[in-house]
Formats: sequence, C-alpha cells, structure tokens
Amino acid sequence: MHIVYKSEATRGAHWQRWLAQHAPDIQLHIWPDIGDPEQVELLVAWQPPENLMRTFPNLKALLSVGAGADQFDLTQLPPDLPVVRMIEPGLTQGMVEYVTFAVLGLHRDMPRYFQQQRAEQWQTHPIRTASQRRVGVMGLGELGQACLKQLVSLGFDCAGWSRTPRGISGVRCWHGSDQLGDFLAHSDILVCLLPLTDSTRGLLNKQLFAQLPDGAALVQVGRGPQLHEADLLAALASGKLSAAVIDVTDPEPLPAGHPFWQHPAIWLTPHIASATQTDSAVAALLDNLRRYQRGEPMVGLIDRNRGY
Amino acid sequence: MHIVYKSEATRGAHWQRWLAQHAPDIQLHIWPDIGDPEQVELLVAWQPPENLMRTFPNLKALLSVGAGADQFDLTQLPPDLPVVRMIEPGLTQGMVEYVTFAVLGLHRDMPRYFQQQRAEQWQTHPIRTASQRRVGVMGLGELGQACLKQLVSLGFDCAGWSRTPRGISGVRCWHGSDQLGDFLAHSDILVCLLPLTDSTRGLLNKQLFAQLPDGAALVQVGRGPQLHEADLLAALASGKLSAAVIDVTDPEPLPAGHPFWQHPAIWLTPHIASATQTDSAVAALLDNLRRYQRGEPMVGLIDRNRGY
Repeated sequence: MHIVYKSEATRGAHWQRWLAQHAPDIQLHIWPDIGDPEQVELLVAWQPPENLMRTFPNLKALLSVGAGADQFDLTQLPPDLPVVRMIEPGLTQGMVEYVTFAVLGLHRDMPRYFQQQRAEQWQTHPIRTASQRRVGVMGLGELGQACLKQLVSLGFDCAGWSRTPRGISGVRCWHGSDQLGDFLAHSDILVCLLPLTDSTRGLLNKQLFAQLPDGAALVQVGRGPQLHEADLLAALASGKLSAAVIDVTDPEPLPAGHPFWQHPAIWLTPHIASATQTDSAVAALLDNLRRYQRGEPMVGLIDRNRGY
Repeated sequence: MHIVYKSEATRGAHWQRWLAQHAPDIQLHIWPDIGDPEQVELLVAWQPPENLMRTFPNLKALLSVGAGADQFDLTQLPPDLPVVRMIEPGLTQGMVEYVTFAVLGLHRDMPRYFQQQRAEQWQTHPIRTASQRRVGVMGLGELGQACLKQLVSLGFDCAGWSRTPRGISGVRCWHGSDQLGDFLAHSDILVCLLPLTDSTRGLLNKQLFAQLPDGAALVQVGRGPQLHEADLLAALASGKLSAAVIDVTDPEPLPAGHPFWQHPAIWLTPHIASATQTDSAVAALLDNLRRYQRGEPMVGLIDRNRGY
C-alpha cells in the first residue's frame, strides 16, 4: 500500500524508517516525492495540497497529523472522503500534563503568588483543598476524559459538558445548550477543550463568563477563535474572572503589543499544551492503516456534519 | 481530660467548638486561658511556653500543630516527653497539589515559557512526556509517599531516597548516604521533602547539585536551612540547574533585595505549599487523643534521636 506524508520533515523521515521496519508492505512517501500518484490511497497531512483529488485521483481518506481537523477546509474536500483526526497516547498525555498544571496553578493562586514574588511581597492566602474547588471541562472526547480522570484523582470536584450526553465516573456531566448555564455556574475553573466548529466559534465571550461564579478562572486549550479576547480582558478587569491560562490565540503567533503578553493575570504559552509525539503517533497510525486494510472504520473518523 | 491549645486563635476557637460537640469529655483550653494547670495532660502548640514543665507540671505529651517539629528546641524539652507531629489528610493533600504543580511546571519548561511571554516571544520547544522525565523525591514519609503516588499516576519515571530503606509501588527506592549519588544521577527533577535535622542542614549544596544530571531542576519544600542559597544561584548561573521552585527560605520572610525575588529561573512562594487544614486536622487530633486515652502510641510520634 502506498501512502503520502505531507507535514514536518524530520518526523516524516522517522515515520518512514519506522514503518519500513515494522510494516514493510506499507510505503510511506514524503511530500513532494510522492511516487506514482495513481497508487496513493491515503494522505497523512497537516494541510492537503490544493487540488487534492486531482493530485491523488484514487485517494481513499485524508488523515490529520494533529488532534483536530479544523485546519482543513472541509467545504473544499469531496463530501464522501473520510477525514480522520490523530488520536494517540502521546498527544493525550501532553494535554493531561498541561491541563493538570494549569488547573493546579489556578487552584493554588499561583498567578497571584508570582505577581507577589516580583513585587517582593511575602504574603500568604488561605488554602482551599481540591475537594473544595469545582473544575468544569467543556469537551468530553478523548482529551477531556483523560484530563478529568487525572483531576478526579487529585480530588477536585469535577464536572463536564459536551454537545451530546456522556457518562464519566466521578464526574457530574451536563450536555447541550440547555444545560450549559448549570454547568458554568458550577465551574470555579473552566477548561475549554472543545473542537473549533461554527457553534464554538466565539463561545468564550461575556455572556458565557457572566454565568461563571465570580472570580472564576479559565484554561483555554481549545482553538484561538473560540475566545473573544476583548471580553476576556473586560472580565479580568472587572474581577468577574481572576486569571486565565491561554495556550491558543487568533492569530498565532500572537501579534507584538497584544495585551495578553504583559497581562499580570494571564499565563500565555505558544500552543504547546500538547503535540503529536513522533514515536507513539506512528504506532497509532499503523493501527489505523491496518484497520483501513481490514475494511474497519479508522479511529478518529470525523463526522462531517458536526465538524469533529 | 484537659488539654491546652497555643497557636493561631481562630483555628483554636473552631477546634474548641468542634471538640465540645464531638468529644464533650475533652476540654480544650485556649492559651493563655489554661484553666487549672495541674490538670493539663497535653499541649497542642506551634511553640510551647518557656518553662514548659513548670507551667504544666503533669504534662504527658507535646503535640505540634504543624507537619514538622523542628520549630521545637528539643534540647529544652524533658528527654522522656513524647513529642508528636501533625499528620492529617488536608496537609498531605496540599503538599501533593503543590509538588505536582511544581514538577509539571518544571517538566514542561514553564519558567522558560513565562520568561518568553514577558519578552513577547512566541517560540515552541520540543515536548518530552512524563515517562521520559525522571523525578526524584527525597524524604519518603507520609508526604513523600503521597506525592510519589500522584507523580506515578501522571506517568513520571519516579525514584525515592530516604535515610532508611523503603518500598513504594512503581518507585525505584534508594537509601542512606552510600546510595545518594546514584539517586541524584537519576533525578532530572529533584524534590526535597526532608525534615530539618543536623544531617539535612545545608544538604542542598554544590556537592549535591554536582551529582544531578546537567540542567536538572529543584523543588524545595523541605525547610529553608537545608538549602545553600549561594550554591543554588551559582548552579543556575552555570546551567548546572535550569530552574527551581522554592517554598521555604532562611529566614522567612525572605529579606528585601534577596536575589531569589527577581531571579527569572526561580519561582518563589511564601511557605504556602501546604498548611494544616482546620477541619481535617481536628479530626486527626481527636483520633490521636483517643489513642492517648487508650494508652496506644500516637500517630506522628517523633524519634528524639533522629529528630523527626
């Protein structure tokens, strides 16, 4: 079987060697050296080339190298072409680490203590333990569930919200727009892990913040366009929100002079919450290739109607 | 039974009410209102009064309100007076939260990313997952074991070191001064949870740092006098250490102008890693009082020879 990889080159070379060793029947070509385009069945890419189906007339599926597929313009792809997100343990692990760090930091007032440090103030504040802190995670797919499992193990009072009903052990789950308000009212720390869709674009705005408890905090690890930046700044200025940890922005990189850079109550990181891990991802990729060869649905197949 | 409390007054009043409700046979007096000193069997305190045995001629034990007993001058106490540390779940929980936060932050290069934020630099660095990061915890008592359990659940490659041999599931354990070097060589992130004793005073010095892997990081949640501050600054300057999270200093508060305040690779907090939690601690105290009444050894009894 012939497949083409079109993304970061070092990783591609590693995957090529790994597959040659572990699955010699699969030939991974690295863009732009694509071999015979007629033979290519699958494309693994961050961005497909223009004229995708003219380039690969026999393409059977498009696989993302990332956790999301929102970088693809689905309207430009054939409606019946399967599109598959990357679900692999390294990417999940990275997100669990980042979200756990961010939630613990907000829970323990670390943005405030770090400001105090630079002001040379030695001042303690009352400690709440995790059981007294309500954490709400929006988005209950692979990543959201894994983060909640870790947060539950730390003793947080955890809730989840998703578009459709979900059940997660030890977590109070809400779903749908009707229940969003109840969920938000119980979220001292709100974690956004939603995919970017038409219904999540701009969702983190003043109407949403108004439904959170006073002094709540935000962890934004979804996608940049979900956050209304001016509304966040206003909520921090009014005290409605106390702090925010932001890993994704719109655009990325964040422009020079943007108020997030120097805001004392914002921790900003350059979209590093998690990334596909070369070693674990190629094993997950091979698993999906074998599913494809057996005619089984691949893991991470996107529902084109809902967009994730 | 009559006991006296000598520490922070708000907590004392809360404990007095709670014990009156849950253990009416026990009378908690709040210093300096000690009732009949002849009747007082136990003192619960951060610092005992001078002339302890003259004040309470029939005292049977001294209980600390904190996790350590190093604030007591043991040489000034009768050698046969039992001294008891506070072991209670709220204090343990707080330490697990802080250490997990600090280790994840160091693991994920957060001191570097926070410096980048203020310099308005959007730059990513390679991600290692927890399984590729070696965390070493010094001190394997109640707190060290609880921290390791959480770090193991996050997937870190965990090791422990203590004075005497210990076995902890999923953790490679070393012990004694002979094995300290091997332990240090395997600690990319070193967490100090040791009690303050003659043998741990000044232990975190350049000889110890030299045995860590290059670029290692330190989490200091033991006691301030364990750290040789000038050696830490030199290790950070040379790159031997990459960053440090410091919760305890000598003296506390840290003096104005001290280099820790503004050091870009140091996160400094004002001894807030954990604290005795009013509600859970009084339940633990009552449990110990009942042990005492039954003639059983109390939880947290200090070995006066080793000092903890």
